[in-house]
Amino acid sequence: MATIKDVAKEANVSIATVSRVINKSPKASKASIESVTVAMKKLGYRPNAAARALVSQSTQTIGVLVGDVSDPFFGSMVKAIDTVASQQGKHLLIGNGYHSAKKEREAIELLINHRCEALVIHSKSLTSEELISFAEEVPGLVLINRFIPDIAERCIALDNHKGSYLATEYLIKHGHQHIGYICSNHDIEDTHQRKAGYLQALKDNGLSHSENYIEYGSPDEEGGEHAMTNLLAKGLPLTAIATYNDYMAAGTLSVLEENGIEAPKDMSIIGFDNGLIAKYLHPKLTTVRYPIQMMAEKAADLALRLANKEEAKADTTMFVPTLVKRVSVEQA
Amino acid sequence: MATIKDVAKEANVSIATVSRVINKSPKASKASIESVTVAMKKLGYRPNAAARALVSQSTQTIGVLVGDVSDPFFGSMVKAIDTVASQQGKHLLIGNGYHSAKKEREAIELLINHRCEALVIHSKSLTSEELISFAEEVPGLVLINRFIPDIAERCIALDNHKGSYLATEYLIKHGHQHIGYICSNHDIEDTHQRKAGYLQALKDNGLSHSENYIEYGSPDEEGGEHAMTNLLAKGLPLTAIATYNDYMAAGTLSVLEENGIEAPKDMSIIGFDNGLIAKYLHPKLTTVRYPIQMMAEKAADLALRLANKEEAKADTTMFVPTLVKRVSVEQA
Repeated sequence: MATIKDVAKEANVSIATVSRVINKSPKASKASIESVTVAMKKLGYRPNAAARALVSQSTQTIGVLVGDVSDPFFGSMVKAIDTVASQQGKHLLIGNGYHSAKKEREAIELLINHRCEALVIHSKSLTSEELISFAEEVPGLVLINRFIPDIAERCIALDNHKGSYLATEYLIKHGHQHIGYICSNHDIEDTHQRKAGYLQALKDNGLSHSENYIEYGSPDEEGGEHAMTNLLAKGLPLTAIATYNDYMAAGTLSVLEENGIEAPKDMSIIGFDNGLIAKYLHPKLTTVRYPIQMMAEKAADLALRLANKEEAKADTTMFVPTLVKRVSVEQA
Repeated sequence: MATIKDVAKEANVSIATVSRVINKSPKASKASIESVTVAMKKLGYRPNAAARALVSQSTQTIGVLVGDVSDPFFGSMVKAIDTVASQQGKHLLIGNGYHSAKKEREAIELLINHRCEALVIHSKSLTSEELISFAEEVPGLVLINRFIPDIAERCIALDNHKGSYLATEYLIKHGHQHIGYICSNHDIEDTHQRKAGYLQALKDNGLSHSENYIEYGSPDEEGGEHAMTNLLAKGLPLTAIATYNDYMAAGTLSVLEENGIEAPKDMSIIGFDNGLIAKYLHPKLTTVRYPIQMMAEKAADLALRLANKEEAKADTTMFVPTLVKRVSVEQA
C-alpha cells in the first residue's frame, strides 16, 4: 500500500503538506489540495485512521453499547445515533452487553481503549457506582434508558412509571375493574417502575389491588405465555391485562387464543414499547410509545457536545411515553 | 490520563516491558506481567488502541456494512458476526448503506481507512466492478447476500431462485392453479431471481403464467398493500399469492382482511425471509427461511481467515433456503 511519502513525492510537495490536505487544514492551498488529491487517487493511497487518531487525539468514533443489536429496539437506537454521528462525520463502534454485567463491562472498556470520543451506553446490569466511575473517566459518556441521580445530567431516560400508569388508566377509563398485570422477572429499574405505575393507577382510581393479579415471566413472548397461563389458572374475574412489554403481550394473546378467549371482546390487552411487532399482532396492539429514536438522537448529541467540552445541558433528559391506540382494548 | 512511561516508572520496568505485557507477548515474564498489571490498575492506565494498531498493523476490528441496522434482518446479521468476532477478541465497526450507492461507497471507504482487518459487506447498490476493485484492495473482504462470479469464493449468497421455486411449488402441491405474485420494484438481483423462481415453478408444473398475475411495490408493508390492491382490481381467479418477502406478505394480508377475503380459507399466502414478524402475522405466515445467521457466521469466519492469509475456501458459499410451514397456506 502506498505511504504518505509516496504521495508527497508524486505530488511534488512536502509530507507536511500532504498531512494538511488529509486533515482538511485551512492552511492547505487550493493547488496543493488538487495535486495531493490526484496523487492519492493515482497511488491508491488511503489515510490511516489509526495514525490520524494518534496525531489528532480524536478517533472520530462514537462508541455504542446496546443490549443485543438483533432486537429491533436496539436497532432503532443504533440507527438514530448513526444518523447524528454521520452528520458530524463520525462513525460507530458497537458493543453488545447481552444483559450480563461482565459483558457490559468488557464492552465499555474496549470502547474506551479505542478512544471513542463519545459513548452512548445502555447498561442495565452494571451498578450505579461502576457507571459513575466510567462517567468520571470519560467526559463524553452518556447513559440511555437509565437514571442515576448523581449524574442525572448525563442520563437520557424514560418515565416508565408514567407509561404504565397511562396504560392502566386507559383500561380503567374503558370500565375495567379487574385488571391483571404481566410483569417481567428481570430485577431492573424498568420492571419495578412499570409495576409501580400499574399499582399507582389502580390505587388512584379506588380499585383494590392484589399481588394475586400479577404474574411474572421473562420479558419475551415465552415469558408472556408462561405468565398468562398462570394468571388464567387462578380463575380471577379479569377483563383486562396490562403487560410489561409488547413481546409479553404477544405471548398473552397466543395463550388467550389457544384458550378460546377472544381479544378484545372477552379480554382487553395493552402493551408497552410500541416495538416493531405491535401493529402486526392480532388484534393490532394498543400500547405505550417508547420514543427511543428521539432519545437516542438526544443522547448522541449530548455525548458529542460533552466530548467537545461544549456547554451541554440537555433541555430534556426524562422523556415521557404516550399512548398508541389500536384495537386491543374495548369497553368492559 | 497516565502514559506508558508512568506505568513503566511505577512498575520499575522498561517501557518495552510494559509494551510486551500489554501486547501479551510470550516474552513477558510472569513477574513483569504482575507488576505491570498492578501499576496499570493503580494509575488507571488504558492502552491506546490506535497506538497499538499502528505498531501491530492490526486494529482488531471487523468492519460490517449493512443496509439499515434498524431492520431486524440486519440486526441478526450483525449479531452473528459479533459472536464470531468476540470469540477471536475482535470487535465491530458498523456502516449503514441505506440502499444508496453513494452511502455504501462512503461507508466502505471509511471502514478501509480505519484499517479493519476483515470486512463483511452487504451491498446491493454498487456495481460488480466497484466491489471487485474493493475486494482486490482488501484481502479480508467478503460479500454477503451477493454473488459475483469473478470473486465467487468470496461471496456468501442465498439461492433466491430456489427459495421462490420452493414456495410456489408448495402452493401448487396444495392444488392451487391460479397463483399471483407480489414482486419488489427494486432493481436488484434478489428481485429478478425470486420472480424467476416463481415463473419456473409454474412452467415446470405445466401452469400457464402471465405478467398480468404479477404486481409490483416497494419491498415493505405499504408496497405489499399497493401491489395486492392492484392485483385484486384485475378480478383474476386467484386462490394463492406468493410474495417477495414477509413485509409484502403482511401488506397483502391487510388488504385481504379489509376486503373481507379470508386467509387462508379464500386465499393462501406464502412469504419469504422468515423474518421477525412472520410468526406474529394473522394467520401465522408460512414462509421461506433465509438462514442469515448461519450465512453471517460463515462470512465473518471466511473474512477473518482471508485477512490472516489462511487457506480459506469456504465449503459452502451458496446457501439454500427451506420452507417454514405455519398456517397461511391451505388446500385449494
